[in-house]
Amino acid sequence: MIVLTREQIEQLIDIPKSVLEIEEAYRATSAGRVNLPPVGHITFPELEADCHIKYGHALGSPIFVIKIATGFPKNVDTEYPTGSGVNVVMSAQTGQVEAVLYDEGMLTDVRTGLGGAIATRLLARRDSKRVLIIGTGRQARYQIESHVAVMGPNLQFQVWGRLSERADSVVNEMSKICSIERVDDLESSVRDADIIVTITGSTIPLVLSDWVKPGTHITAVGADAPGKQELEVALVEKADVLVADHIEQCVDHGEISRFVQTDDTRKSTIVELGQVLNNAKLGRRNDSQITIADQTGIAACDIAISQSVLNSWTKNLNKT
Amino acid sequence: MIVLTREQIEQLIDIPKSVLEIEEAYRATSAGRVNLPPVGHITFPELEADCHIKYGHALGSPIFVIKIATGFPKNVDTEYPTGSGVNVVMSAQTGQVEAVLYDEGMLTDVRTGLGGAIATRLLARRDSKRVLIIGTGRQARYQIESHVAVMGPNLQFQVWGRLSERADSVVNEMSKICSIERVDDLESSVRDADIIVTITGSTIPLVLSDWVKPGTHITAVGADAPGKQELEVALVEKADVLVADHIEQCVDHGEISRFVQTDDTRKSTIVELGQVLNNAKLGRRNDSQITIADQTGIAACDIAISQSVLNSWTKNLNKT
Repeated sequence: MIVLTREQIEQLIDIPKSVLEIEEAYRATSAGRVNLPPVGHITFPELEADCHIKYGHALGSPIFVIKIATGFPKNVDTEYPTGSGVNVVMSAQTGQVEAVLYDEGMLTDVRTGLGGAIATRLLARRDSKRVLIIGTGRQARYQIESHVAVMGPNLQFQVWGRLSERADSVVNEMSKICSIERVDDLESSVRDADIIVTITGSTIPLVLSDWVKPGTHITAVGADAPGKQELEVALVEKADVLVADHIEQCVDHGEISRFVQTDDTRKSTIVELGQVLNNAKLGRRNDSQITIADQTGIAACDIAISQSVLNSWTKNLNKT
Repeated sequence: MIVLTREQIEQLIDIPKSVLEIEEAYRATSAGRVNLPPVGHITFPELEADCHIKYGHALGSPIFVIKIATGFPKNVDTEYPTGSGVNVVMSAQTGQVEAVLYDEGMLTDVRTGLGGAIATRLLARRDSKRVLIIGTGRQARYQIESHVAVMGPNLQFQVWGRLSERADSVVNEMSKICSIERVDDLESSVRDADIIVTITGSTIPLVLSDWVKPGTHITAVGADAPGKQELEVALVEKADVLVADHIEQCVDHGEISRFVQTDDTRKSTIVELGQVLNNAKLGRRNDSQITIADQTGIAACDIAISQSVLNSWTKNLNKT
C-alpha cells in the first residue's frame, strides 16, 4: 500500500493535465460510463460539521476510489484546517488497497476549484471580465486560482464575505496572481458581475433574483449537502440554462434541489455538465441568457485526480 | 496520521476485551446511541465482487470510523486474499484523519467472527455441543476461532463446503484449537446440529426448513448484500425467535430480507441483538425453540474494534 502525504501529492499534481482529465470525468459520467453510488454523508450537528464519502468506479478502470472529506467550519478558530480527508485507491481487479492519498482534503479542493472553472469557462459570456467571488474560505481561494488557470489572467475579481477581514485575507493572498478587490455591497456587486461564483456554507439565499442582470453566469459550489442554499429559488427559475455536474446529486442536495422539489417536471429542464462539454449547443446560446452551473462535486472527479496523482508517482518512480 | 499495518494491528487486538466492547456496541446501537447512516456498496458484477463502506459515530465518542472492506471471491485462484480493506479513523471533534488501520480486512473478520459467536452464545441452548459450519472461506475459520474463544473448548465442530478439499483445509487448520471433522451430507448434518453457522456467499438457500430440528440455533453471517441468501424463507418463517444485528440493515439486505418483503408487518416480530443482550427474555425462552441470528455486520462494531486497537497502541506508546 502506497501512502502519499499532502506535500508529496502537491508535487505530483499537473493542473493543465488535470483540467483535461476532469473534463473527461464529466463526459464519462454523463455518458453513463461511471458507476456512482449515492454519496455517503454523516453529520455532527453540534459542530455544524459533516463528512462526505464519495466513491465510484469508471467502468473499465483498473482502480476505484473512495474519497473521504470533512467540513468542520468551526475549526476556523482553532489550529486545525476546516477540512481534511483521504482518498483511498483500491484495485477494481483484486479488491486490494493500492494507495492512501493523505491529501488532507487538498485533492477535493483542487478538483472542486477546477470543476467550477471548467463550468464557468463553458457557460459564461466570451466577453466576461468581472468575477464576483462570494465566500472567503479555503475553497474561495481555489476557485480564484482555478479560474485564473483555466480562463487566463485577464479576469477582474471581487470578493465578498460576511466578515470583511476574511475578505481582506483573500485579497492579500490572491493579489499575487490576479487583479482582486474586496467589496462590501453585495447587491451592487452582483448587479455589476459577469460571473458569480458562490462558495459559502450558507443555508439561506445570498443572491437574489432581482439583482442578477441578463447575460450573467453563476457557478454555485457551496451547496453540497441537504439544507444548504446560496441562490434564491426565483433566480434558479429565472435562469435560461441550468447545468448540473450530476443531475441526481443536484436534485437530491444541490442548489437546484428546492427548484425541483416544488415541481418534479422541472428536472427535465436541467442538462449535465458532461453533456454540454460534448455539445456546446446545450449550454449558453446568446449573450443575454442567465446560466447557472450547480456543482455538488462528483466521485468521478475524485477518481480522475487520484488516478492522475498515482500515474505521476509511478512515472517518477520509473525515472529514478 | 497514524498508519498501522496488519502485523501491528494483530499484536494490538485483545480478544476478551473486544468481546465486551463489541457487546457494548450492539447495546449502544439498539439504544439509538450510534449514528449509523446506510451502508455504502459498490459492485463489480463481472468478478462477482463488491466493496462495502460502513461508517458511523457512537454519540459522544471523540472519533468516528469509515470502514472499507472488499470481497473478491475469485481471488481464491490467485495470489491475493479474497478480501482486503482499511479502517479510517477520523476525529469527530476536528474532522482530521487520526489513523489508517491497514488491516487488509482483518478487523472486519475479527469483529464478524466475534459478533457471530456473541449471538450464538446468547441464543443457543445451554447444552449445545454440535456446531455445523457451512462454508469454507476465511470467515469460516474466524467463526470457529471466535466460537471457541467465546463459548469454550468443548464444542464439536463439523464443516461442510461445496468443495471437499476446501473443507479439509479448514479441518487441518482448525484441529489445533478444537474437535472438528469434515461432513459431506449437508442434510443429515443439519438434522444433527445444535448450532448452525452459515458463512457462504450463496444466493440460493442451502439450509431447508424441514431439516432443522426444534431447539436448533442458527447464526447466519453470509448474507451481507442484496441477493445473498443461505436459509430457506420457510425456515425463517418457522423460527420462534428472530434476532437481527441491526433491523434496518437486515430488512434491507440480510438473511431475513425476503421474509419481510412478502409481509411488512413481520418486521415487528424481529428483535435486535443489543436488545437481547440487555434483556435475555427477548431471546430463547425454552429448549425446543428455533432461534436465528441474522448478522449483516454493523459499523458500530467496526468503530468499537478500531477504537480498541488505537487505545492499545496509545497505551503501548506511553509505556515506552
